[in-house]
Amino acid sequence: MHLNDFQNLIKTIYLKKDSARGIHATFNWLVEEIGELTRAIRKGNREKIKEEFADCLAWLLSVGSILEIDAEDAMGKYTNGCPKCGKIPCECKEDGS
Amino acid sequence: MHLNDFQNLIKTIYLKKDSARGIHATFNWLVEEIGELTRAIRKGNREKIKEEFADCLAWLLSVGSILEIDAEDAMGKYTNGCPKCGKIPCECKEDGS
Repeated sequence: MHLNDFQNLIKTIYLKKDSARGIHATFNWLVEEIGELTRAIRKGNREKIKEEFADCLAWLLSVGSILEIDAEDAMGKYTNGCPKCGKIPCECKEDGS
Repeated sequence: MHLNDFQNLIKTIYLKKDSARGIHATFNWLVEEIGELTRAIRKGNREKIKEEFADCLAWLLSVGSILEIDAEDAMGKYTNGCPKCGKIPCECKEDGS
């Protein structure tokens, strides 16, 4: 499925509620899910890790939709390789320089 | 572009470095990008918001790849609607119940 089809799916399910809640409160939900993914990783439950990963991705797409970001368009910065060094694979130093 | 094509693209660019760094250190980079997106939203710079959104998505996909999660497979939990209420659009109460 295309990335934008996933973004549109999440929009169809949640955008009305997300928009009513607003960007800051919706961002808090994303951060909450990031925390849940962290916990799932610590506990090592593979099924839970997969669930929480999907929730993080769904909430991130929701945040993008509220901000009127087209996810595929935004990801265009990576289609020619690392945006910093321009290489595939990336040859940047670990400190990002 | 398919979600998994994006995941594979990010893998091709970064997986070797991400794997060498490990899941916990890579997760820290994701959290750092989440912080940068928050700052961009606060400052209201649309181009920067789009850049940081893409970086969050790229790092989340990297985290998924280290954990051997197939992003499209994981997102399957949303393809029939809200996983909690089963509706499109979601009819869950705001407290998640």
